[in-house]
Amino acid sequence: MLVVKKFGGSSVANKERIFNVAGRCAEEYQKGNDVVVVLSAMGDTTDELLDKAEDINPNASKRELDMLLTTGEQISVSLMAMALQAMNIPAISLNAFQVQMHSTSRNGNARFKRIDTDRIQHELGNRKVVIVTGFQGVNKYDDYTTLGRGGSDTTAVALAAVLHADQCEIYTDVEGVYTADPRVVKNARKIEEITYDEMLELATSGAKVLHNRSVEMAKKYGVELVVRSSLNTEEGTVVKEVVKVEKMLITGVAADKNTARISVIGVEDKPGIAFKIFNTLSRNNINVDIILQSVGREGTKDISFTVSQDDLKEALAVLEERKQALTIKDITHDEKVAKISIVGAGMLSNPGVAATMFESLCNSNININMISTSEIRITVLIDEKDADNALVAVHDGFGLED
Amino acid sequence: MLVVKKFGGSSVANKERIFNVAGRCAEEYQKGNDVVVVLSAMGDTTDELLDKAEDINPNASKRELDMLLTTGEQISVSLMAMALQAMNIPAISLNAFQVQMHSTSRNGNARFKRIDTDRIQHELGNRKVVIVTGFQGVNKYDDYTTLGRGGSDTTAVALAAVLHADQCEIYTDVEGVYTADPRVVKNARKIEEITYDEMLELATSGAKVLHNRSVEMAKKYGVELVVRSSLNTEEGTVVKEVVKVEKMLITGVAADKNTARISVIGVEDKPGIAFKIFNTLSRNNINVDIILQSVGREGTKDISFTVSQDDLKEALAVLEERKQALTIKDITHDEKVAKISIVGAGMLSNPGVAATMFESLCNSNININMISTSEIRITVLIDEKDADNALVAVHDGFGLED
Repeated sequence: MLVVKKFGGSSVANKERIFNVAGRCAEEYQKGNDVVVVLSAMGDTTDELLDKAEDINPNASKRELDMLLTTGEQISVSLMAMALQAMNIPAISLNAFQVQMHSTSRNGNARFKRIDTDRIQHELGNRKVVIVTGFQGVNKYDDYTTLGRGGSDTTAVALAAVLHADQCEIYTDVEGVYTADPRVVKNARKIEEITYDEMLELATSGAKVLHNRSVEMAKKYGVELVVRSSLNTEEGTVVKEVVKVEKMLITGVAADKNTARISVIGVEDKPGIAFKIFNTLSRNNINVDIILQSVGREGTKDISFTVSQDDLKEALAVLEERKQALTIKDITHDEKVAKISIVGAGMLSNPGVAATMFESLCNSNININMISTSEIRITVLIDEKDADNALVAVHDGFGLED
Repeated sequence: MLVVKKFGGSSVANKERIFNVAGRCAEEYQKGNDVVVVLSAMGDTTDELLDKAEDINPNASKRELDMLLTTGEQISVSLMAMALQAMNIPAISLNAFQVQMHSTSRNGNARFKRIDTDRIQHELGNRKVVIVTGFQGVNKYDDYTTLGRGGSDTTAVALAAVLHADQCEIYTDVEGVYTADPRVVKNARKIEEITYDEMLELATSGAKVLHNRSVEMAKKYGVELVVRSSLNTEEGTVVKEVVKVEKMLITGVAADKNTARISVIGVEDKPGIAFKIFNTLSRNNINVDIILQSVGREGTKDISFTVSQDDLKEALAVLEERKQALTIKDITHDEKVAKISIVGAGMLSNPGVAATMFESLCNSNININMISTSEIRITVLIDEKDADNALVAVHDGFGLED
């Protein structure tokens, strides 16, 4: 059996934790299995490297930032190989060059194009634990790239796909995927099984346990994911195509506070203007989420939409620059908002889910500003200060604790 | 004009020094020259990484140690590229994979086999300052290697050779090569020009300013070296094939305290035994320096020789293990010794140099234990406590301050 195990930065933050992870890998290896381990940089290493870069040049090229950042994972994989060797387990560390993890050329946000398996297969054939740097690739110019947020998860899923691994385990500091953030909702319940689509909706709705890119890739290549804790041996959550029928209308609730609302006021009410506005944003790589359009005064309209807080500054600048061309009279924004989403394949065949959600929020005196839905998700925009209460109210409203 | 500049770890130890180096490179670039920069890891980075490895596994494989250590230079080259970019100088950093610096496979002590110039030429053609990781190579298995001591100097010389550079500048924290260590001999004089052979003898005799491997390579490929300070713009010392005749008998004096004497006592006086002893040591990669053989009691002989202090432990172990086969009765050693060497092409045609040296030492009451000579070098072994006095005495004896 071939198992890919991914451990995040906090799981390898110090000597003790490195040996904890090495122990988990050794156990798997001693069962006779082939083991590929994907690691992030140790603890806060990536942030420390970013600080160094910021200190030297706040506008450093992304190519050089990636050259700097990729050292982080190379340090953790080599130390992990040494830890395994100290336990008499043959091990070898490999970086993106050595594996040949080909990516697109976009520094800071690259995507995998092709991953060679020869070197890894060769080392597995020699009965070595193979430890691979997460988060990084090499582009066609032979330059390092990084994959952006959730990059190491993506590396693990991609390796599981090309190696036809029997299992891909994503180790985190929680025991799995929960019906809601257990730090906020005390009676949140660990989910045993969840479909790719539900996980995808939860991930894009603010659940931080898995990044949506890795789930997308897992779905595309049919890689069964297990999300579990690096600190204990609990079962964790399995993410796969078809799950056992659990009689739950919805699978989970998520809050996303990293969101901001922008309103463009007094836009000319003629065809194509809305398209132009969103096209302008999308060409600047700004993702727009919930959109609400309302009729304004004197034949104009107002359009509100949400963006990630990280993109707010740039979105405002881009709109301000093209204000006249886009016939915008005024631009306002609000950072003190949050999205609350419920996700579940069950809502496909059950009307009334939205009503239950709105009722729960209403009973807790929480005002809904905007609404957006997909087939298996309903998202509402509320004031940020209400976010935690809303999460509890909706979780209770659907009886998710049982 | 193509210039290769090499800066050591202390020259890039912090932000201020990084910008100092970037300034030197920018100046060269703005003259219209092509600039290739070779860097070591920042400050104590390499030692810190070694400490981390030691903490995880004191017997870590050299392959993984090299994987770990090579991150050090990658950090310094990427930060240097950012610093140059901050000064609006186009710059790109490259590691051993990206350049394709092929080395032998021996981790921790590799040698260059072949260096591709395509990528560097391409980037120079785009008018970029190219910043290359020193100290590292890639072997035929696509694994990182490191070059051992003086590795970054070797990288600089090797690049200067394959790129046919017009100049190879080795920047240090001293202004050049001196007639003796200026910290010990106050009136030591900076040498303007020195031949490869003299530099080689000085380097192997304890002068730390250049490593002998880089000088050997410079000689082999006719790369003219300039040793100068990264802190000021003084001229420095030029190392080349033929130098202007300066009427000096000897060029410099060096002391080497990193030496130890081993004596094997009571060895059978028959042919081949001495050969076997030194062959045993050489097969364990232990370099033997001064050798002295004397007649012992009852048809036996005693052989004394010096090794580097780093090799002492292993040398003693190796000899102890084969004590019987090598007919050794007893093994003694002394770490409290030092070598004092005088070097100079002038001594070839001038008898009496040795006499002047011995006289200077005798006048200072310094006892000579062993003597060794080459065509352009005379080395004596003395007590370590006398080393500084000996350096001053010999420097004065030859009037090197003028």
